[in-house]
Amino acid sequence: MNVHDLPTPALLVDADAFADNVATMAAARPGPALRPHVKAFKSTALARELAAAGHRTFCGATPKELVGLAAAGLGDDLLLANEVVDPERLRALAGAGARVTVAVDSDATVDAAAAAGIREVLVDVDVGCFRCGCPADDAGRLAKRARAAGLQVRGVMGYEGHLMMEPGETRADRVAEAMAGLLAAHAEVGGNVVSGGGTGTYAENTWITELQAGSYALMDSAYGGQGLPFRQALFLWLTVVSVNPGGWAVADGGLKALGMDHGDPTVEGYRTLYCSDEHTTFLPLGESGLPAVGDRVRVVPAHVDPTVAYHEVLHVVQGEQVVDTWPVDLRGW
Amino acid sequence: MNVHDLPTPALLVDADAFADNVATMAAARPGPALRPHVKAFKSTALARELAAAGHRTFCGATPKELVGLAAAGLGDDLLLANEVVDPERLRALAGAGARVTVAVDSDATVDAAAAAGIREVLVDVDVGCFRCGCPADDAGRLAKRARAAGLQVRGVMGYEGHLMMEPGETRADRVAEAMAGLLAAHAEVGGNVVSGGGTGTYAENTWITELQAGSYALMDSAYGGQGLPFRQALFLWLTVVSVNPGGWAVADGGLKALGMDHGDPTVEGYRTLYCSDEHTTFLPLGESGLPAVGDRVRVVPAHVDPTVAYHEVLHVVQGEQVVDTWPVDLRGW
Repeated sequence: MNVHDLPTPALLVDADAFADNVATMAAARPGPALRPHVKAFKSTALARELAAAGHRTFCGATPKELVGLAAAGLGDDLLLANEVVDPERLRALAGAGARVTVAVDSDATVDAAAAAGIREVLVDVDVGCFRCGCPADDAGRLAKRARAAGLQVRGVMGYEGHLMMEPGETRADRVAEAMAGLLAAHAEVGGNVVSGGGTGTYAENTWITELQAGSYALMDSAYGGQGLPFRQALFLWLTVVSVNPGGWAVADGGLKALGMDHGDPTVEGYRTLYCSDEHTTFLPLGESGLPAVGDRVRVVPAHVDPTVAYHEVLHVVQGEQVVDTWPVDLRGW
Repeated sequence: MNVHDLPTPALLVDADAFADNVATMAAARPGPALRPHVKAFKSTALARELAAAGHRTFCGATPKELVGLAAAGLGDDLLLANEVVDPERLRALAGAGARVTVAVDSDATVDAAAAAGIREVLVDVDVGCFRCGCPADDAGRLAKRARAAGLQVRGVMGYEGHLMMEPGETRADRVAEAMAGLLAAHAEVGGNVVSGGGTGTYAENTWITELQAGSYALMDSAYGGQGLPFRQALFLWLTVVSVNPGGWAVADGGLKALGMDHGDPTVEGYRTLYCSDEHTTFLPLGESGLPAVGDRVRVVPAHVDPTVAYHEVLHVVQGEQVVDTWPVDLRGW
């Protein structure tokens, strides 16, 4: 199918950019040195591409993501890189027929994991992100409690999410600072896994044994401004439905097709004015003039993860040809 | 089921607040004086409640919403309050077994409607929103073109979306200004429908024959600050998964469960710090202290429409009891 025949709004994956991103990351973090984070793309079909590139360990933010990976035959070594206390979902994860490790950061999460039949855990350590993770000086105690509850403690994790958009000049120093706490915790916890990082710190975080990154595969305009070697591979494909002689045009996707927490998307060749529920209004840029009703425009989302979570499929394109369709099959909870 | 037994994140609808909102609006805009906009809630079950309150005409922003309403037996009089040029979707709409009217604002949209077998249209007029709608002085020409193409022209529509959050003091004047153009267009177009407005201008817009409002039924924190007589009926229900002795807590829903274009949601009883993909981090408010892991919190979304679009169901609650489940069955495109 030609991309111009796709109903819109539709998410496109540029196959060449995606392949470049996968190769670039696989060179920097080969095999299990990368634990791809499926929360960024929520697709077992995309995960399979990463497995083919040598990465067969995955992490996710929800039990559903991991249960889905296991069912797709990608369950060699799955990490729930998040705290969950829902007994039913933890039991489903424990019984998914995969090697499963879950993050714990409190007595309650240790107890919930043990009660649900989970066998392996990482102690999640707060490294300054104002999110999950125990204080570094509580990690040893939690590891003991986990072992006493019969859990195998594989090591630690800590996500320096607050440094993903840190300017290049200070990024390495601030990552080093954040990881010092994680390494101190690791000394108390033991095990051979030190898991952390993300797309924004993939180069600077040299202290971890495995990188948790997912955005690099598809990218977004927020990461695109960080000077990383990854190309934009994800686009929202829209049809122009209205053109006003006053000087603006409107395309047929907006707030329900785009994660908006990082701000407006970028309409290629134009200037974004604003998004509403099912529309993106845009203006001419320089000498571009305006499109006609029925024309297509490509839009770069500002934040990949919540954008993909609105869509049922990713259309893989090479030039103008749609060469594959990847279901976004790990959505919801 | 008790609401504390629901897996989270989950969207709750407070049955009493919802009933109050429906009654308040039905008193102000009875029967066909309100054309409920399903884009706000995307649920035929909720639409059925509005039909029971006397509103049996609906509008939507996508063909899928209207085809779904028709299939649910709610097809008395459906308006696609949006421009669409997708021939296949327009044909599906024309053949949905309902009375269908579509908005047109250009030669291309008139031609697309006629070619797809659509029978009735409204001329959509730009009233200052920087979105769809033809210039008011082009409306008569378009109506002629539509009639020449065999379409019945029922009248005009114009959405003053830019005035939904207008301060109370200036709202009436600015709505009058916006509607002056719509009425001028109506004089040229003819027909007996003047459709427009929304929740934010439900009281001030006295020029229209029917109000297009949907947010009033569930509400959000953006509309909640506008002094309207509608109560908050929609809540995101979350479980606390991490509490840090440093003074913050983290609940299990975030950017993939909330429309974020109107900013952060409100965590009841706490102060929102920020949202990430699957988390909302919050701080104590006054003397509230922090919750414990496993506690539930209620969150008020900042924008109802893109929030609901992330979810599969709405759980209707009365006190602590879940009394009904409304599928969000009109999602996607």
